[in-house]
Amino acid sequence: MTGKRLRVIPFGGLGEVGKNMMAFEYGRNIVIVDAGLMFPAADMWGIDYIIPDMNYLEDKLDWVRGVIITHGHEDHTGAIKHVMKDLRAPIYATAITRGLLENKLREARLLDKLTIQTVQAGEKVNLGPFDVEFFHTSHSIPDAVGLAITTPVGLVVHTGDFKLDPTPVDGWPMDLGKLAEFGERGVLALFSDSTNAEQPGRTPSEAIIDGALDEVFTKAQGRVLVATFASLISRTQQVLNAAAKHKRKLAMVGTSMVENSKLALKLGYLKDPANVLVSLETALEMPQGKVALMMTGSQGEPSSILSRLAQGNNRQFDLEAGDTVVVSAHPIPGNEEVVARTVNKLFQRGAHVIYDPLLPVHVSGHASSEEQSQLIALLKPKFFVPVHGELRMLHAHAKLAKQAGVLPDNVAVVENGTVLVFTADSMTISERVPGGYVYVDGAGVGDIGPEVLRDRDRLANYGFVIVSLLVDSDTRQLVNKPEMISRGFVYVRDATELFNNAAERVVKAVRSNPNGNLARHVESALTDYFYAETKRRPMVFAVVNEV
Amino acid sequence: MTGKRLRVIPFGGLGEVGKNMMAFEYGRNIVIVDAGLMFPAADMWGIDYIIPDMNYLEDKLDWVRGVIITHGHEDHTGAIKHVMKDLRAPIYATAITRGLLENKLREARLLDKLTIQTVQAGEKVNLGPFDVEFFHTSHSIPDAVGLAITTPVGLVVHTGDFKLDPTPVDGWPMDLGKLAEFGERGVLALFSDSTNAEQPGRTPSEAIIDGALDEVFTKAQGRVLVATFASLISRTQQVLNAAAKHKRKLAMVGTSMVENSKLALKLGYLKDPANVLVSLETALEMPQGKVALMMTGSQGEPSSILSRLAQGNNRQFDLEAGDTVVVSAHPIPGNEEVVARTVNKLFQRGAHVIYDPLLPVHVSGHASSEEQSQLIALLKPKFFVPVHGELRMLHAHAKLAKQAGVLPDNVAVVENGTVLVFTADSMTISERVPGGYVYVDGAGVGDIGPEVLRDRDRLANYGFVIVSLLVDSDTRQLVNKPEMISRGFVYVRDATELFNNAAERVVKAVRSNPNGNLARHVESALTDYFYAETKRRPMVFAVVNEV
Repeated sequence: MTGKRLRVIPFGGLGEVGKNMMAFEYGRNIVIVDAGLMFPAADMWGIDYIIPDMNYLEDKLDWVRGVIITHGHEDHTGAIKHVMKDLRAPIYATAITRGLLENKLREARLLDKLTIQTVQAGEKVNLGPFDVEFFHTSHSIPDAVGLAITTPVGLVVHTGDFKLDPTPVDGWPMDLGKLAEFGERGVLALFSDSTNAEQPGRTPSEAIIDGALDEVFTKAQGRVLVATFASLISRTQQVLNAAAKHKRKLAMVGTSMVENSKLALKLGYLKDPANVLVSLETALEMPQGKVALMMTGSQGEPSSILSRLAQGNNRQFDLEAGDTVVVSAHPIPGNEEVVARTVNKLFQRGAHVIYDPLLPVHVSGHASSEEQSQLIALLKPKFFVPVHGELRMLHAHAKLAKQAGVLPDNVAVVENGTVLVFTADSMTISERVPGGYVYVDGAGVGDIGPEVLRDRDRLANYGFVIVSLLVDSDTRQLVNKPEMISRGFVYVRDATELFNNAAERVVKAVRSNPNGNLARHVESALTDYFYAETKRRPMVFAVVNEV
Repeated sequence: MTGKRLRVIPFGGLGEVGKNMMAFEYGRNIVIVDAGLMFPAADMWGIDYIIPDMNYLEDKLDWVRGVIITHGHEDHTGAIKHVMKDLRAPIYATAITRGLLENKLREARLLDKLTIQTVQAGEKVNLGPFDVEFFHTSHSIPDAVGLAITTPVGLVVHTGDFKLDPTPVDGWPMDLGKLAEFGERGVLALFSDSTNAEQPGRTPSEAIIDGALDEVFTKAQGRVLVATFASLISRTQQVLNAAAKHKRKLAMVGTSMVENSKLALKLGYLKDPANVLVSLETALEMPQGKVALMMTGSQGEPSSILSRLAQGNNRQFDLEAGDTVVVSAHPIPGNEEVVARTVNKLFQRGAHVIYDPLLPVHVSGHASSEEQSQLIALLKPKFFVPVHGELRMLHAHAKLAKQAGVLPDNVAVVENGTVLVFTADSMTISERVPGGYVYVDGAGVGDIGPEVLRDRDRLANYGFVIVSLLVDSDTRQLVNKPEMISRGFVYVRDATELFNNAAERVVKAVRSNPNGNLARHVESALTDYFYAETKRRPMVFAVVNEV
């Protein structure tokens, strides 16, 4: 019976269900949608990023008919080198997404080994038992697509990331007629972006940013610096338009900003008819009232240009009094504190800083609840699965779907790795497969687990103390004065007395050791002593050498 | 001339200017306002909390005429045991604030040594050259006060924390007539709460929460669990009222919740005419549809009842399917991620979870920009100093003050420790004194500095490796096989090869050591080796014992 069923599996990181990858499986055929990464939570000490757990797919790589990337954001592309490590199925993406993917694959020395096919919204691709039709979505990157997948059990729609922006920057709103047509064909199941399901109403159009930028450029006396995501090409276009209107030149600062805008210009996603774009070098020699700069750092990333300007350690130029800095992004959850700190430091250096809510210089790229309901109403799916969101967002989205007429039993809120099985008239929540995430830390993929993170947590909070002992192998008594090394526990130079007393405890502990494990005995005595004195619990280790 | 000038100094933590403490100084007379703590930023590893730097006041303790605490929140009271450690000036506070302070001072064994005087809004207290009049403010704790201080150079108003709520829970709105009267008397300087200066419009009244709670209680089939701050006594009253209306009993869960509601009941701030309050034991034996519970944990604090329920490791009772959980608070900046995770886990355990923006079950306790402007218009201060906020909020507040008619040159945005000097017709920004903050970590106050935090940061990200070497003092060659201890770097059990190879590097490094520092030489070799293999940078130490 398995052969007559569609299996759909969401993968992803940090509980954002299906955000980074999804698998559509029918018999021995799999289509993978997206290959993204997630940034780690605050307590995932030292982890660089996390990627979907590929374990389920590892012995099914020859079933994979294609890998579809819906758009070029990191959480949909950032794991491509890991996903394609041993996989040689063709990749499908629109031109800009392809360009961004190629940069990543080139760097990972995988580009030559892979086939990538450029697709356009409106096109269809046959992948084994699946006919995949790409439809355009409005999102905060150009040329994003959603998927209408005709499967042997029925039509399945996957929205990708979307908002129903009536006036997007590229003048290409989502085709509601096309969506209605899918609805008339009959949608078996809808998988839809839940990011803003908790938000009432509609997400404002990108167009309102034009007004805010116009106000900023009108008032600014000195330079205008705009910080945003390097992938937000439509924002680059908006800033470019504002600069053109106000007779300023615009320079991109930083590698990712320069490279992405070059790519977008080359592919025609970014348009500069008035030749506004100049190099940074040129911009820095022009009068300040004639210049605008764009850079990354809207998330307070420590190595970004904006952070370096806030810290006062940027190489090519410094922030100057009179500069206007626009933070054209919202903090990603978890980044609020560091973004706020960056803004404070910019003020401290005398800049005017403009950010939402002071002016609407950013809006979300995801649909809010009213748009989500509208989409459900257009598609009239029999079954509904909220994806792209944490559990709380999925629950809010599930509620909307029920209000929009999907039968309550036909709505499934599931977590990553849960297999959903569809026939032409049923949806069943089936087994769980490994659908969590894998830590990437430096060169290591998956070698860091909870034990190491627990140790890092302890070290972050209390530091460590190591005592090195040299004992006589016959008498088991100390031959030298115990030497201690400590970091992250107390300021060692101010703690001479503490460590002298600790050394005495070690001497006593060795003397009184009842022929047991000398190292453990010393560690226990020191742990107790340090806690009594400092109410802190550093990791304590004793290294015993016998001579 | 110093004797004819008023000096005002804001103190505080984390850039929230004047939030935790302010000093008003005239000649050899000081009034301290508030004695609060701040919770550490995410990168202040292991720090429990931070307190104002008292260095400036240490040799002026006999100048202090009084310590005024405006209200009972931690960021205004939490450092009281540190501030009063060597200070014996009388403390002034309203009854509920006094009750909360007494709990802290008793615990610190300071209560017997101190004088506390209960004050009421409307009363005046003379403190040397200062006449301090207390006026009532609406805030998210009962009986908060602001201060109108008549000084030899003029009338100075300090708002404390406030909002202009027309319908507060205690039915006691701020007395706008009184504020207007101050304005008529002539206000030299206004120090005003800037927390929500970035927010447009007015902060909603606490009254809208009644409607949201009514909806929750109407729909709930099982128990209703409300998580909030233990100090939010007015919220306790609102939940109590909703429980009474819907014929449920209400139990407080957890020490702080039980103690604070007892105190508020005793002092008359919390009213229970229908005998709604029962013990947790009683509540747990009642039918679920007849019970509501209140607890802490709205900030995702790991040891709180709500977190334990989310984790499934609470002692007295578990979360059950059908429970409705209301998170009646907004995440404090920096807590967003852990609060979101807690909510996700509550959903995972089958609870209905209600939080803002799904329903308005919480509103801010601070005035938004329109209210702030209204206050400035009523008081018509000659000089304006935004306090209680980060720099970006102070700048937004400063802009409002200028729009409200304060002369631009008469508005001062300053940081903690900046001395402002007032005469009857001037305000001067004067010298900086130590006005930052001091870390409290376990039993240590101020013994942790940037060096220790940098080490903790490195350890959190990479862990450490220690190698213990025994060398012959003559030949300087190894006597034993090098022993390594590592934590937080790699999972040691899976890294046998890495450490075997590392040991070989150590052997080689010792052999090739050109009579230099053996430990440094080995550390350098290991650091390079580990980075090449793992792209990680653990702290590496070599301990050398010579025999």
